[in-house]
Amino acid sequence: MTPSGERRVSAAALRIDLNSDVGESFGAWAMGSDEDLIPLVTSVNVACGAHAGDPVVMARTVQLARTHGAAIGAHPGYPDLAGFGRRDIVMDRDELEAWVLYQIGALAAFARADGAELRHVKPHGALYNRAAVDRDVAASIVRAVRRYSGELVFVGLAGSVMLDVAAGEGLRTAAEAFADRAYESDGTLRSRRLPDAVLPDPATAAEQAVAIVGEGRVRAHDGTLVSLHADTLCIHGDTPSAVDYARAVRDALESAGVDIRSVSR
Amino acid sequence: MTPSGERRVSAAALRIDLNSDVGESFGAWAMGSDEDLIPLVTSVNVACGAHAGDPVVMARTVQLARTHGAAIGAHPGYPDLAGFGRRDIVMDRDELEAWVLYQIGALAAFARADGAELRHVKPHGALYNRAAVDRDVAASIVRAVRRYSGELVFVGLAGSVMLDVAAGEGLRTAAEAFADRAYESDGTLRSRRLPDAVLPDPATAAEQAVAIVGEGRVRAHDGTLVSLHADTLCIHGDTPSAVDYARAVRDALESAGVDIRSVSR
Amino acid sequence: MTPSGERRVSAAALRIDLNSDVGESFGAWAMGSDEDLIPLVTSVNVACGAHAGDPVVMARTVQLARTHGAAIGAHPGYPDLAGFGRRDIVMDRDELEAWVLYQIGALAAFARADGAELRHVKPHGALYNRAAVDRDVAASIVRAVRRYSGELVFVGLAGSVMLDVAAGEGLRTAAEAFADRAYESDGTLRSRRLPDAVLPDPATAAEQAVAIVGEGRVRAHDGTLVSLHADTLCIHGDTPSAVDYARAVRDALESAGVDIRSVSR
Amino acid sequence: MTPSGERRVSAAALRIDLNSDVGESFGAWAMGSDEDLIPLVTSVNVACGAHAGDPVVMARTVQLARTHGAAIGAHPGYPDLAGFGRRDIVMDRDELEAWVLYQIGALAAFARADGAELRHVKPHGALYNRAAVDRDVAASIVRAVRRYSGELVFVGLAGSVMLDVAAGEGLRTAAEAFADRAYESDGTLRSRRLPDAVLPDPATAAEQAVAIVGEGRVRAHDGTLVSLHADTLCIHGDTPSAVDYARAVRDALESAGVDIRSVSR
Repeated sequence: MTPSGERRVSAAALRIDLNSDVGESFGAWAMGSDEDLIPLVTSVNVACGAHAGDPVVMARTVQLARTHGAAIGAHPGYPDLAGFGRRDIVMDRDELEAWVLYQIGALAAFARADGAELRHVKPHGALYNRAAVDRDVAASIVRAVRRYSGELVFVGLAGSVMLDVAAGEGLRTAAEAFADRAYESDGTLRSRRLPDAVLPDPATAAEQAVAIVGEGRVRAHDGTLVSLHADTLCIHGDTPSAVDYARAVRDALESAGVDIRSVSR
Repeated sequence: MTPSGERRVSAAALRIDLNSDVGESFGAWAMGSDEDLIPLVTSVNVACGAHAGDPVVMARTVQLARTHGAAIGAHPGYPDLAGFGRRDIVMDRDELEAWVLYQIGALAAFARADGAELRHVKPHGALYNRAAVDRDVAASIVRAVRRYSGELVFVGLAGSVMLDVAAGEGLRTAAEAFADRAYESDGTLRSRRLPDAVLPDPATAAEQAVAIVGEGRVRAHDGTLVSLHADTLCIHGDTPSAVDYARAVRDALESAGVDIRSVSR
Repeated sequence: MTPSGERRVSAAALRIDLNSDVGESFGAWAMGSDEDLIPLVTSVNVACGAHAGDPVVMARTVQLARTHGAAIGAHPGYPDLAGFGRRDIVMDRDELEAWVLYQIGALAAFARADGAELRHVKPHGALYNRAAVDRDVAASIVRAVRRYSGELVFVGLAGSVMLDVAAGEGLRTAAEAFADRAYESDGTLRSRRLPDAVLPDPATAAEQAVAIVGEGRVRAHDGTLVSLHADTLCIHGDTPSAVDYARAVRDALESAGVDIRSVSR
Repeated sequence: MTPSGERRVSAAALRIDLNSDVGESFGAWAMGSDEDLIPLVTSVNVACGAHAGDPVVMARTVQLARTHGAAIGAHPGYPDLAGFGRRDIVMDRDELEAWVLYQIGALAAFARADGAELRHVKPHGALYNRAAVDRDVAASIVRAVRRYSGELVFVGLAGSVMLDVAAGEGLRTAAEAFADRAYESDGTLRSRRLPDAVLPDPATAAEQAVAIVGEGRVRAHDGTLVSLHADTLCIHGDTPSAVDYARAVRDALESAGVDIRSVSR
């Protein structure tokens, strides 16, 4: 986790995208700090009304992303507002493909209406977790993305099945790692049900971000060093201190000379 | 457009679109006879998941339209499955615009995934009725349509406010009349709450269709003749005999030499 | 109602409940033949708005049950209208308990408003299938039922885990068998994905009903005889010929001298 | 509860209920400060899942009310999560009655499961505002309440149509006034769209509360004194400072010797 020399990594080669899940308010209910967070990231994954978000929120969020130059992506989830897309729902392949396509189209309309373009797709919550290990679920999502546009970047968990499937279908992929989450020694994320699943403070997250980007590895929870290639780092937006984490990560990466920009650019 | 002689109208000048509201099943619940009806019309208005339809139904319906060469349009409604979009919901302008844009985008994704294009938009139910008389509501819908694409045709009630608003914003419009519904002497549709709101049989509907297209007028419920210009005739799909009506209307128009084709072509 | 001949089972001891899942329409979408079916059964399981049904449908269905003297039960399902409660949703225990309690209360209000009482609860679809094999899921449902009222009868698959759990918690239980479905030699229902899952005609279903009630056994799909105790027979209402099946089953049972009445009486 | 000095109103005769709308979180989205607010009021109006709340939230909220001895009431609203029940939805009488009955039953189940009883019903948002002026809407709500139980107290805007209708149908009623909202000289609430609709600070709200309870009148926004009889004062829970307002109002009323207790006791 210790970078070399004057902390500066070889900037020429190093670049990273910072992404955040946004637009997760719903009706009268607010969630996240989109106004503060979006200016700090280079890509946003916008909820599409199935697990969170509604058309008004989507319009506002896309506009915010436009204003700050963040690449706009769809963040489809299981259709389950009450469960926030965090509950597994067993769906047929075609059914899941249709639900993902629906959400991509709905979000793309707001980008288009603002003269912007949809750039990427990243599944949400239980759908993300399932697609990381289940080839069929991953394939349904990938088919929806590809049928919408072969130009979209598929964002998924680094090293997971879904990136294989997406790449196999000819999509550009972006491997995602987490600046603010602890890793296990096998390279998986430490479960939120265990203690210390979230890194304790912005400085630690910043350090992890620089290690991932600069050295391609991360210090796992048990101390082992794990190799990890990431194209994009996720900054969670649903905690009160999300903005502090984002700023710390961004500052550290900039100080390390990393080129921070969207994967889809 | 003035007919003459033996009831045969001057075919060269006469054309009409036949449209139907389709894709109104939802989950396990079936509605309509889309398989039989879609081959008989030239344009379909596909429910977008707010008042009816779901992603699976939308995928299937769009594919059916593709197969039979019907122009694909969005049929946005108030977000109200339990009310089937037939209940007025008082929404802010921006809110309504966002909801319509959402639905257009969602449906367009299915067209796009099938290599087709969205051609037109026709509001549904309470939203249609409201937009026929309420300039603000019409304007919200029109803004959503235009922001999505200036190429889309706006389909609305012949002679109503919404067509004015749409035309004023530079959209192509298509005036809709009804083959199977009775008219009042002021040119409005006879309310479904009154007796004889629906024409009694396919033959009567066919006759009315030919009169509207060939002569630009319709015999109202009280016997008076009312002028009525229509670019498209709606064939309702939610009655058991919808297909009989559609076939009768289509046959009569063809016999009268009318060119039946989509307004968006 | 007086049977005869050798087919007559020992009437004194034999009784059975006939139940049907009803109230599964939603908004503008109709499902089932409740008007025809409810007069033929002794218990109805009314959808509660989560997987099907809505307040208007519930009010109408409860009233219909009242009119025909059928015992009124709640038919709670996973909250998933688009999936008709047929998709597994992974929920926490407390979450599931709360969702079931919610549905029981909602339905009970309609019974109460009509001067009737809720008598039983039978889970629906994926929830039923899950509770048949998953002790935790069964326990959540049972807790909801018991907390609402210890007087309610718990209706579940004959021989399944859920009846054990319910009985263990002190609830009266009713073991359900199916007149119109084929069984496997291990006593489970033949999957609907396999051929011949549904018995071919009303006469065969009637024969199976009499065998189950009269002899406590059923001829499985492969010809073996399987022991099966049932307190209630389910008559499916979602097929066009449901009423024919119901009538045939009822007639055959009456001819066999079986006392047909609600388990909760 | 210890009064003092000249501020003391004639305690013997004076009593008031303090109520708050609670349980308005939904799934992952939090709203309000129920934990802090519920201990300060004597009645709570719990959202029932139509405009806000879900079964998990309802279970938790009812338990909280039980713990603190607040009377539990249902707070039914239009079925419109995305609009938080603040949008008018035009419903038929029977439809509205069924929707209200549904919500009452659902909430009552949680009270019952906790060994408590439902005590009152207060409509929410657009439904409340509509019922204040529309006799038909009021009548639908009142019918639902009465069919559920003639023992329930109907809580509605002081001086409004809905209280007349409820009383006319034999229900006990409770007239509601607002401690934290400005009044107009005609006794109506100052619209939230106008400036100064909400009183500027807890002290002013407390003063207004004491004036309403002690003197039966309120100083309107333009300075005129308006007569106003209230049985219950609403403390809004959806602002950050709600708890401060509640505490100030409660303290002032106690200092004035007012007996603070639920209308349904």
